[in-house]
Amino acid sequence: MDIEGIGHHISRQYNEELEAIRSKVMAMGGLVEQQLANAILALEESNGALAESVIDTDYKVNSFEVEIDEECVQILARRQPAASDLRLIMTVIKTITDLERIGDEAERISKMSIKLKMSENVKSTMPAIGHMGNHVRLMVHDALDAFARMDAEAALKVWHEDRKVDKEYEGIMRQLMTYMMEDPRSIPDVVDLLWSVRALERIGDRATNICEYVMYLVKGKDVRHISVEQMEKQVLGK
Amino acid sequence: MDIEGIGHHISRQYNEELEAIRSKVMAMGGLVEQQLANAILALEESNGALAESVIDTDYKVNSFEVEIDEECVQILARRQPAASDLRLIMTVIKTITDLERIGDEAERISKMSIKLKMSENVKSTMPAIGHMGNHVRLMVHDALDAFARMDAEAALKVWHEDRKVDKEYEGIMRQLMTYMMEDPRSIPDVVDLLWSVRALERIGDRATNICEYVMYLVKGKDVRHISVEQMEKQVLGK
Repeated sequence: MDIEGIGHHISRQYNEELEAIRSKVMAMGGLVEQQLANAILALEESNGALAESVIDTDYKVNSFEVEIDEECVQILARRQPAASDLRLIMTVIKTITDLERIGDEAERISKMSIKLKMSENVKSTMPAIGHMGNHVRLMVHDALDAFARMDAEAALKVWHEDRKVDKEYEGIMRQLMTYMMEDPRSIPDVVDLLWSVRALERIGDRATNICEYVMYLVKGKDVRHISVEQMEKQVLGK
Repeated sequence: MDIEGIGHHISRQYNEELEAIRSKVMAMGGLVEQQLANAILALEESNGALAESVIDTDYKVNSFEVEIDEECVQILARRQPAASDLRLIMTVIKTITDLERIGDEAERISKMSIKLKMSENVKSTMPAIGHMGNHVRLMVHDALDAFARMDAEAALKVWHEDRKVDKEYEGIMRQLMTYMMEDPRSIPDVVDLLWSVRALERIGDRATNICEYVMYLVKGKDVRHISVEQMEKQVLGK
Protein backbone atom coordinates (compact mmCIF):
# COMPACT_ATOMS: atom_id res chain seq x y z
CA MET A 1 0.00 0.00 0.00
CA ASP A 2 1.34 3.41 -0.84
CA ILE A 3 0.25 6.77 0.43
CA GLU A 4 -2.37 6.94 -2.33
CA GLY A 5 -4.21 4.01 -0.76
CA ILE A 6 -5.81 6.29 1.77
CA GLY A 7 -8.01 9.23 1.05
CA HIS A 8 -9.70 8.09 -2.17
CA HIS A 9 -13.35 7.97 -1.31
CA ILE A 10 -16.44 9.04 -3.10
CA SER A 11 -17.11 11.41 -0.23
CA ARG A 12 -14.77 14.38 -0.45
CA GLN A 13 -15.69 15.28 3.09
CA TYR A 14 -14.53 11.86 4.34
CA ASN A 15 -11.21 12.23 2.49
CA GLU A 16 -10.71 15.56 4.15
CA GLU A 17 -11.51 14.18 7.59
CA LEU A 18 -8.92 11.42 7.27
CA GLU A 19 -6.37 13.85 5.90
CA ALA A 20 -7.08 16.28 8.77
CA ILE A 21 -6.39 13.54 11.32
CA ARG A 22 -3.13 12.60 9.64
CA SER A 23 -2.05 16.23 9.61
CA LYS A 24 -2.96 16.67 13.24
CA VAL A 25 -0.89 13.64 14.25
CA MET A 26 2.05 15.16 12.37
CA ALA A 27 1.51 18.51 14.11
CA MET A 28 1.37 16.77 17.48
CA GLY A 29 4.50 14.83 16.57
CA GLY A 30 6.28 18.04 15.58
CA LEU A 31 5.40 19.60 18.91
CA VAL A 32 6.57 16.53 20.85
CA GLU A 33 9.85 16.52 18.92
CA GLN A 34 10.35 20.19 19.76
CA GLN A 35 9.57 19.52 23.43
CA LEU A 36 12.11 16.71 23.45
CA ALA A 37 14.79 18.79 21.70
CA ASN A 38 14.24 21.62 24.21
CA ALA A 39 14.31 19.24 27.18
CA ILE A 40 17.63 17.78 26.04
CA LEU A 41 19.12 21.22 25.43
CA ALA A 42 17.86 22.51 28.77
CA LEU A 43 19.50 19.54 30.48
CA GLU A 44 22.80 19.88 28.63
CA GLU A 45 23.07 23.63 29.17
CA SER A 46 21.31 23.90 32.57
CA ASN A 47 18.93 26.31 30.92
CA GLY A 48 16.19 26.77 33.53
CA ALA A 49 14.05 29.08 31.40
CA LEU A 50 13.99 26.58 28.53
CA ALA A 51 13.13 23.76 30.96
CA GLU A 52 10.24 25.86 32.33
CA SER A 53 8.96 26.45 28.81
CA VAL A 54 8.85 22.68 28.19
CA ILE A 55 6.86 22.19 31.39
CA ASP A 56 4.51 25.05 30.51
CA THR A 57 3.90 23.67 27.01
CA ASP A 58 3.02 20.08 27.98
CA TYR A 59 -0.69 20.95 28.16
CA LYS A 60 -0.64 21.55 24.40
CA VAL A 61 0.57 17.99 23.82
CA ASN A 62 -2.21 16.71 26.07
CA SER A 63 -4.84 18.76 24.21
CA PHE A 64 -3.71 17.25 20.91
CA GLU A 65 -4.17 13.77 22.36
CA VAL A 66 -7.70 14.43 23.59
CA GLU A 67 -8.72 16.21 20.37
CA ILE A 68 -7.35 13.58 18.01
CA ASP A 69 -8.89 10.77 20.06
CA GLU A 70 -12.25 12.50 19.86
CA GLU A 71 -11.92 12.94 16.10
CA CYS A 72 -11.09 9.25 15.71
CA VAL A 73 -14.23 8.32 17.65
CA GLN A 74 -16.28 10.67 15.45
CA ILE A 75 -14.93 9.06 12.28
CA LEU A 76 -15.50 5.55 13.63
CA ALA A 77 -19.09 6.45 14.52
CA ARG A 78 -19.98 8.40 11.37
CA ARG A 79 -17.91 6.85 8.62
CA GLN A 80 -17.57 3.26 9.73
CA PRO A 81 -14.15 2.93 8.15
CA ALA A 82 -12.97 -0.44 6.86
CA ALA A 83 -9.71 -2.02 5.72
CA SER A 84 -6.83 0.45 5.43
CA ASP A 85 -8.89 3.40 6.73
CA LEU A 86 -9.71 1.44 9.86
CA ARG A 87 -6.07 0.49 10.28
CA LEU A 88 -5.17 4.16 9.95
CA ILE A 89 -7.55 5.07 12.77
CA MET A 90 -6.19 2.25 14.96
CA THR A 91 -2.64 3.38 14.22
CA VAL A 92 -3.48 6.97 15.09
CA ILE A 93 -5.17 6.00 18.39
CA LYS A 94 -2.10 4.06 19.46
CA THR A 95 0.50 6.48 18.10
CA ILE A 96 -0.89 9.50 19.95
CA THR A 97 -0.78 7.60 23.26
CA ASP A 98 2.95 7.03 22.78
CA LEU A 99 3.48 10.62 21.61
CA GLU A 100 1.74 11.95 24.70
CA ARG A 101 3.91 9.78 26.95
CA ILE A 102 7.05 10.96 25.12
CA GLY A 103 5.86 14.48 25.95
CA ASP A 104 5.53 13.41 29.60
CA GLU A 105 9.10 12.10 29.61
CA ALA A 106 10.34 15.39 28.13
CA GLU A 107 8.51 17.20 30.92
CA ARG A 108 10.08 14.90 33.52
CA ILE A 109 13.57 15.51 32.13
CA SER A 110 12.94 19.26 32.29
CA LYS A 111 11.72 19.15 35.90
CA MET A 112 14.78 17.20 36.88
CA SER A 113 17.17 19.47 34.98
CA ILE A 114 15.95 22.49 36.98
CA LYS A 115 17.13 21.02 40.28
CA LEU A 116 20.26 19.30 38.94
CA LYS A 117 23.56 20.64 40.26
CA MET A 118 26.29 20.70 37.62
CA SER A 119 29.19 18.98 39.37
CA GLU A 120 32.32 18.14 37.36
CA ASN A 121 31.22 14.52 37.04
CA VAL A 122 27.74 15.42 35.89
CA LYS A 123 29.19 17.89 33.41
CA SER A 124 31.55 15.33 31.95
CA THR A 125 28.65 12.93 31.22
CA MET A 126 26.63 15.54 29.37
CA PRO A 127 28.13 15.06 25.89
CA ALA A 128 27.23 11.35 25.96
CA ILE A 129 23.74 12.11 27.26
CA GLY A 130 23.28 14.81 24.63
CA HIS A 131 24.35 12.35 21.96
CA MET A 132 21.92 9.71 23.18
CA GLY A 133 19.19 12.35 23.45
CA ASN A 134 19.66 13.41 19.87
CA HIS A 135 19.65 9.80 18.79
CA VAL A 136 16.23 9.12 20.34
CA ARG A 137 14.91 12.47 19.07
CA LEU A 138 15.92 11.40 15.57
CA MET A 139 14.20 8.05 16.12
CA VAL A 140 10.97 9.86 17.03
CA HIS A 141 11.36 12.11 13.99
CA ASP A 142 12.03 9.23 11.60
CA ALA A 143 9.21 7.12 13.05
CA LEU A 144 6.79 9.98 12.38
CA ASP A 145 8.26 10.43 8.93
CA ALA A 146 7.65 6.73 8.22
CA PHE A 147 4.06 7.26 9.40
CA ALA A 148 3.62 10.30 7.12
CA ARG A 149 4.98 8.44 4.12
CA MET A 150 3.44 5.09 5.16
CA ASP A 151 6.79 3.52 4.64
CA ALA A 152 7.11 0.14 6.39
CA GLU A 153 10.73 -0.36 5.40
CA ALA A 154 11.72 3.00 6.86
CA ALA A 155 9.81 2.08 10.04
CA LEU A 156 11.75 -1.18 10.27
CA LYS A 157 15.02 0.71 9.88
CA VAL A 158 14.14 3.07 12.75
CA TRP A 159 13.04 0.09 14.83
CA HIS A 160 16.55 -1.37 14.51
CA GLU A 161 18.12 1.88 15.79
CA ASP A 162 16.85 1.11 19.27
CA ARG A 163 19.53 -1.50 19.81
CA LYS A 164 22.19 1.20 19.38
CA VAL A 165 20.38 3.49 21.80
CA ASP A 166 20.30 0.67 24.36
CA LYS A 167 24.08 0.30 24.02
CA GLU A 168 24.59 4.04 24.57
CA TYR A 169 22.28 3.80 27.59
CA GLU A 170 24.29 1.00 29.15
CA GLY A 171 27.56 2.88 28.65
CA ILE A 172 26.22 6.01 30.35
CA MET A 173 24.77 3.96 33.21
CA ARG A 174 28.13 2.31 33.87
CA GLN A 175 29.79 5.72 33.94
CA LEU A 176 27.22 7.20 36.33
CA MET A 177 27.53 4.20 38.63
CA THR A 178 31.30 4.71 38.79
CA TYR A 179 30.85 8.39 39.67
CA MET A 180 28.54 7.51 42.54
CA MET A 181 31.02 4.99 43.94
CA GLU A 182 33.91 7.45 43.64
CA ASP A 183 32.03 10.34 45.23
CA PRO A 184 29.10 9.25 47.41
CA ARG A 185 28.15 12.89 48.07
CA SER A 186 27.17 13.17 44.42
CA ILE A 187 24.62 10.32 44.73
CA PRO A 188 21.41 12.40 44.90
CA ASP A 189 22.39 14.39 41.80
CA VAL A 190 23.57 11.39 39.87
CA VAL A 191 20.35 9.50 40.70
CA ASP A 192 18.38 12.42 39.26
CA LEU A 193 20.45 12.11 36.14
CA LEU A 194 19.86 8.33 36.07
CA TRP A 195 16.11 8.99 35.77
CA SER A 196 16.66 11.33 32.83
CA VAL A 197 18.84 8.85 30.99
CA ARG A 198 16.25 6.17 31.68
CA ALA A 199 13.56 8.51 30.33
CA LEU A 200 15.54 8.87 27.09
CA GLU A 201 15.85 5.10 26.83
CA ARG A 202 12.08 4.72 27.25
CA ILE A 203 11.46 7.33 24.56
CA GLY A 204 13.48 5.11 22.20
CA ASP A 205 11.15 2.22 23.13
CA ARG A 206 8.14 4.38 22.39
CA ALA A 207 9.56 5.33 18.99
CA THR A 208 9.84 1.60 18.19
CA ASN A 209 6.19 1.17 19.24
CA ILE A 210 5.22 3.80 16.65
CA CYS A 211 7.32 1.94 14.05
CA GLU A 212 5.41 -1.26 14.82
CA TYR A 213 2.08 0.51 14.30
CA VAL A 214 3.31 1.88 10.95
CA MET A 215 4.32 -1.62 9.81
CA TYR A 216 0.84 -2.83 10.83
CA LEU A 217 -0.78 0.07 8.99
CA VAL A 218 1.08 -0.59 5.76
CA LYS A 219 1.30 -4.38 5.80
CA GLY A 220 -1.98 -5.16 7.56
CA LYS A 221 -0.26 -7.56 9.94
CA ASP A 222 0.47 -7.08 13.62
CA VAL A 223 4.26 -7.21 14.06
CA ARG A 224 4.38 -6.80 17.85
CA HIS A 225 5.86 -9.56 19.96
CA ILE A 226 7.28 -11.51 17.05
CA SER A 227 10.91 -12.29 16.26
CA VAL A 228 13.08 -9.89 14.28
CA GLU A 229 13.26 -12.48 11.48
CA GLN A 230 9.47 -12.72 11.29
CA MET A 231 9.19 -8.94 11.32
CA GLU A 232 11.67 -8.58 8.47
CA LYS A 233 9.81 -11.23 6.51
CA GLN A 234 6.53 -9.34 6.95
CA VAL A 235 8.01 -6.02 5.92
CA LEU A 236 10.65 -6.90 3.35
CA GLY A 237 8.92 -10.03 2.08
CA LYS A 238 12.06 -12.10 2.26
CA MET B 1 -25.21 3.94 32.40
CA ASP B 2 -25.15 0.64 34.25
CA ILE B 3 -23.76 -2.67 33.19
CA GLU B 4 -27.06 -3.47 31.44
CA GLY B 5 -26.45 -0.65 28.98
CA ILE B 6 -24.14 -2.81 26.95
CA GLY B 7 -25.02 -6.07 25.32
CA HIS B 8 -28.68 -5.49 24.47
CA HIS B 9 -28.83 -5.71 20.74
CA ILE B 10 -31.21 -7.35 18.37
CA SER B 11 -28.33 -9.48 17.16
CA ARG B 12 -27.57 -12.13 19.74
CA GLN B 13 -24.29 -12.80 17.97
CA TYR B 14 -23.21 -9.17 18.42
CA ASN B 15 -24.07 -9.29 22.13
CA GLU B 16 -21.93 -12.36 22.48
CA GLU B 17 -19.02 -10.77 20.65
CA LEU B 18 -19.00 -7.75 22.96
CA GLU B 19 -19.34 -9.98 26.01
CA ALA B 20 -16.48 -12.18 24.78
CA ILE B 21 -14.20 -9.15 24.48
CA ARG B 22 -15.07 -7.98 27.98
CA SER B 23 -14.37 -11.45 29.35
CA LYS B 24 -11.07 -11.65 27.54
CA VAL B 25 -9.95 -8.31 28.97
CA MET B 26 -10.78 -9.62 32.44
CA ALA B 27 -8.84 -12.83 31.75
CA MET B 28 -5.86 -10.80 30.54
CA GLY B 29 -6.16 -8.59 33.62
CA GLY B 30 -6.25 -11.64 35.89
CA LEU B 31 -3.09 -12.98 34.28
CA VAL B 32 -1.31 -9.62 34.59
CA GLU B 33 -2.32 -9.38 38.26
CA GLN B 34 -0.92 -12.86 38.85
CA GLN B 35 2.31 -11.95 37.06
CA LEU B 36 2.64 -8.86 39.20
CA ALA B 37 1.93 -10.76 42.44
CA ASN B 38 4.54 -13.37 41.51
CA ALA B 39 7.11 -10.73 40.54
CA ILE B 40 6.69 -8.99 43.90
CA LEU B 41 6.92 -12.26 45.83
CA ALA B 42 9.96 -13.38 43.81
CA LEU B 43 11.64 -10.08 44.65
CA GLU B 44 10.79 -10.20 48.36
CA GLU B 45 11.84 -13.80 48.82
CA SER B 46 14.67 -13.97 46.23
CA ASN B 47 12.76 -16.80 44.61
CA GLY B 48 14.59 -17.34 41.31
CA ALA B 49 12.30 -20.09 40.06
CA LEU B 50 9.24 -17.91 40.55
CA ALA B 51 10.98 -15.00 38.80
CA GLU B 52 11.78 -17.30 35.85
CA SER B 53 8.16 -18.37 35.65
CA VAL B 54 7.06 -14.72 35.36
CA ILE B 55 9.56 -14.18 32.53
CA ASP B 56 8.45 -17.38 30.79
CA THR B 57 4.78 -16.41 31.02
CA ASP B 58 5.02 -12.90 29.57
CA TYR B 59 4.35 -14.19 26.04
CA LYS B 60 0.83 -15.13 27.18
CA VAL B 61 0.14 -11.51 28.16
CA ASN B 62 1.42 -10.40 24.76
CA SER B 63 -0.79 -12.91 22.95
CA PHE B 64 -3.83 -11.59 24.78
CA GLU B 65 -3.01 -8.07 23.62
CA VAL B 66 -2.66 -9.03 19.95
CA GLU B 67 -5.80 -11.23 20.02
CA ILE B 68 -8.02 -8.68 21.74
CA ASP B 69 -6.81 -5.90 19.44
CA GLU B 70 -7.66 -8.05 16.43
CA GLU B 71 -11.13 -8.79 17.82
CA CYS B 72 -11.73 -5.08 18.36
CA VAL B 73 -10.80 -4.35 14.74
CA GLN B 74 -13.17 -7.13 13.60
CA ILE B 75 -16.03 -5.68 15.62
CA LEU B 76 -15.33 -2.16 14.37
CA ALA B 77 -15.31 -3.40 10.77
CA ARG B 78 -18.31 -5.74 10.95
CA ARG B 79 -20.60 -4.21 13.55
CA GLN B 80 -19.90 -0.52 13.23
CA PRO B 81 -20.55 0.10 16.91
CA ALA B 82 -21.89 3.45 18.08
CA ALA B 83 -22.33 5.29 21.38
CA SER B 84 -21.55 3.18 24.46
CA ASP B 85 -20.49 0.15 22.39
CA LEU B 86 -17.94 2.27 20.57
CA ARG B 87 -16.70 3.70 23.87
CA LEU B 88 -16.35 0.14 25.16
CA ILE B 89 -14.15 -0.79 22.20
CA MET B 90 -12.04 2.39 22.64
CA THR B 91 -11.68 1.63 26.35
CA VAL B 92 -10.63 -1.94 25.63
CA ILE B 93 -8.03 -0.90 23.03
CA LYS B 94 -6.44 1.51 25.50
CA THR B 95 -6.77 -0.69 28.58
CA ILE B 96 -4.99 -3.67 27.04
CA THR B 97 -2.03 -1.48 26.06
CA ASP B 98 -1.59 -0.50 29.70
CA LEU B 99 -2.12 -4.09 30.86
CA GLU B 100 0.55 -5.33 28.49
CA ARG B 101 2.99 -2.70 29.74
CA ILE B 102 2.22 -3.65 33.36
CA GLY B 103 3.12 -7.19 32.33
CA ASP B 104 6.41 -5.86 30.93
CA GLU B 105 7.18 -4.10 34.21
CA ALA B 106 6.50 -7.35 36.12
CA GLU B 107 8.92 -9.10 33.78
CA ARG B 108 11.53 -6.37 34.35
CA ILE B 109 11.18 -6.68 38.14
CA SER B 110 11.64 -10.45 37.85
CA LYS B 111 14.76 -10.16 35.68
CA MET B 112 16.25 -7.74 38.15
CA SER B 113 15.35 -9.87 41.18
CA ILE B 114 17.31 -12.81 39.77
CA LYS B 115 20.59 -10.92 39.83
CA LEU B 116 19.92 -8.95 43.03
CA LYS B 117 22.22 -9.72 45.95
CA MET B 118 20.42 -9.70 49.29
CA SER B 119 22.62 -7.48 51.45
CA GLU B 120 21.40 -6.46 54.91
CA ASN B 121 20.36 -3.05 53.60
CA VAL B 122 18.46 -4.47 50.66
CA LYS B 123 16.77 -6.97 52.95
CA SER B 124 15.68 -4.28 55.38
CA THR B 125 13.91 -2.34 52.59
CA MET B 126 11.95 -5.37 51.39
CA PRO B 127 8.95 -5.03 53.72
CA ALA B 128 8.33 -1.48 52.51
CA ILE B 129 8.75 -2.53 48.86
CA GLY B 130 6.45 -5.51 49.40
CA HIS B 131 3.86 -3.19 50.93
CA MET B 132 4.06 -0.76 48.02
CA GLY B 133 3.95 -3.68 45.57
CA ASN B 134 0.77 -5.01 47.09
CA HIS B 135 -0.72 -1.55 47.06
CA VAL B 136 -0.21 -1.15 43.29
CA ARG B 137 -1.34 -4.73 42.67
CA LEU B 138 -4.56 -3.88 44.51
CA MET B 139 -4.91 -0.73 42.38
CA VAL B 140 -4.65 -2.83 39.21
CA HIS B 141 -7.18 -5.30 40.62
CA ASP B 142 -9.64 -2.60 41.65
CA ALA B 143 -9.25 -0.71 38.35
CA LEU B 144 -10.18 -3.90 36.47
CA ASP B 145 -13.03 -4.50 38.87
CA ALA B 146 -14.33 -0.98 38.14
CA PHE B 147 -14.07 -1.83 34.43
CA ALA B 148 -15.98 -5.11 34.90
CA ARG B 149 -18.74 -3.39 36.85
CA MET B 150 -18.55 -0.17 34.79
CA ASP B 151 -18.39 1.75 38.00
CA ALA B 152 -17.04 5.29 37.50
CA GLU B 153 -17.11 6.14 41.21
CA ALA B 154 -15.05 3.07 42.05
CA ALA B 155 -12.61 4.05 39.28
CA LEU B 156 -12.29 7.53 40.77
CA LYS B 157 -11.58 6.01 44.19
CA VAL B 158 -8.78 3.84 42.80
CA TRP B 159 -7.44 6.86 40.89
CA HIS B 160 -7.01 8.70 44.22
CA GLU B 161 -4.98 5.81 45.67
CA ASP B 162 -2.07 6.73 43.43
CA ARG B 163 -1.18 9.69 45.61
CA LYS B 164 -0.56 7.31 48.52
CA VAL B 165 1.56 5.06 46.34
CA ASP B 166 3.66 8.06 45.32
CA LYS B 167 4.25 8.87 49.00
CA GLU B 168 5.39 5.29 49.67
CA TYR B 169 7.64 5.52 46.62
CA GLU B 170 9.31 8.70 47.86
CA GLY B 171 9.93 7.20 51.29
CA ILE B 172 11.59 4.11 49.85
CA MET B 173 13.69 6.22 47.48
CA ARG B 174 15.00 8.32 50.37
CA GLN B 175 15.92 5.17 52.27
CA LEU B 176 17.72 3.61 49.28
CA MET B 177 19.63 6.83 48.68
CA THR B 178 20.82 6.81 52.29
CA TYR B 179 22.01 3.21 51.96
CA MET B 180 24.05 4.07 48.88
CA MET B 181 25.72 6.99 50.63
CA GLU B 182 26.49 4.88 53.73
CA ASP B 183 27.89 1.96 51.77
CA PRO B 184 29.08 2.88 48.27
CA ARG B 185 29.92 -0.75 47.50
CA SER B 186 26.20 -1.50 47.59
CA ILE B 187 25.47 1.02 44.81
CA PRO B 188 25.06 -1.40 41.86
CA ASP B 189 22.60 -3.56 43.82
CA VAL B 190 20.68 -0.64 45.19
CA VAL B 191 20.40 0.92 41.72
CA ASP B 192 18.88 -2.35 40.50
CA LEU B 193 16.39 -2.09 43.31
CA LEU B 194 15.69 1.55 42.39
CA TRP B 195 14.51 0.43 38.96
CA SER B 196 12.13 -2.09 40.50
CA VAL B 197 10.62 0.45 42.87
CA ARG B 198 10.27 2.84 39.94
CA ALA B 199 8.58 0.06 37.95
CA LEU B 200 6.04 -0.34 40.75
CA GLU B 201 5.40 3.39 40.79
CA ARG B 202 4.78 3.34 37.02
CA ILE B 203 2.37 0.43 37.41
CA GLY B 204 0.37 2.65 39.76
CA ASP B 205 0.29 5.30 37.01
CA ARG B 206 -0.95 2.74 34.52
CA ALA B 207 -3.70 1.65 36.90
CA THR B 208 -4.86 5.30 37.04
CA ASN B 209 -4.86 5.36 33.22
CA ILE B 210 -7.26 2.40 33.24
CA CYS B 211 -9.42 4.25 35.79
CA GLU B 212 -9.58 7.25 33.45
CA TYR B 213 -10.73 5.05 30.56
CA VAL B 214 -13.45 3.53 32.78
CA MET B 215 -14.70 7.01 33.73
CA TYR B 216 -14.77 7.87 30.01
CA LEU B 217 -16.61 4.63 29.23
CA VAL B 218 -19.30 5.21 31.83
CA LYS B 219 -19.66 8.98 31.67
CA GLY B 220 -18.93 9.51 27.97
CA LYS B 221 -16.50 12.34 28.76
CA ASP B 222 -12.73 12.28 28.50
CA VAL B 223 -11.35 12.91 32.00
CA ARG B 224 -7.65 12.88 31.10
CA HIS B 225 -5.57 15.98 31.70
CA ILE B 226 -8.23 17.81 33.68
CA SER B 227 -8.12 18.95 37.30
CA VAL B 228 -9.17 16.66 40.13
CA GLU B 229 -12.11 18.99 40.82
CA GLN B 230 -13.31 18.75 37.21
CA MET B 231 -12.90 14.98 37.29
CA GLU B 232 -14.93 14.67 40.49
CA LYS B 233 -17.62 16.88 39.00
CA GLN B 234 -17.82 14.65 35.91
CA VAL B 235 -18.02 11.45 37.92
CA LEU B 236 -19.88 12.39 41.06
CA GLY B 237 -21.93 15.17 39.48
CA LYS B 238 -21.17 17.63 42.25
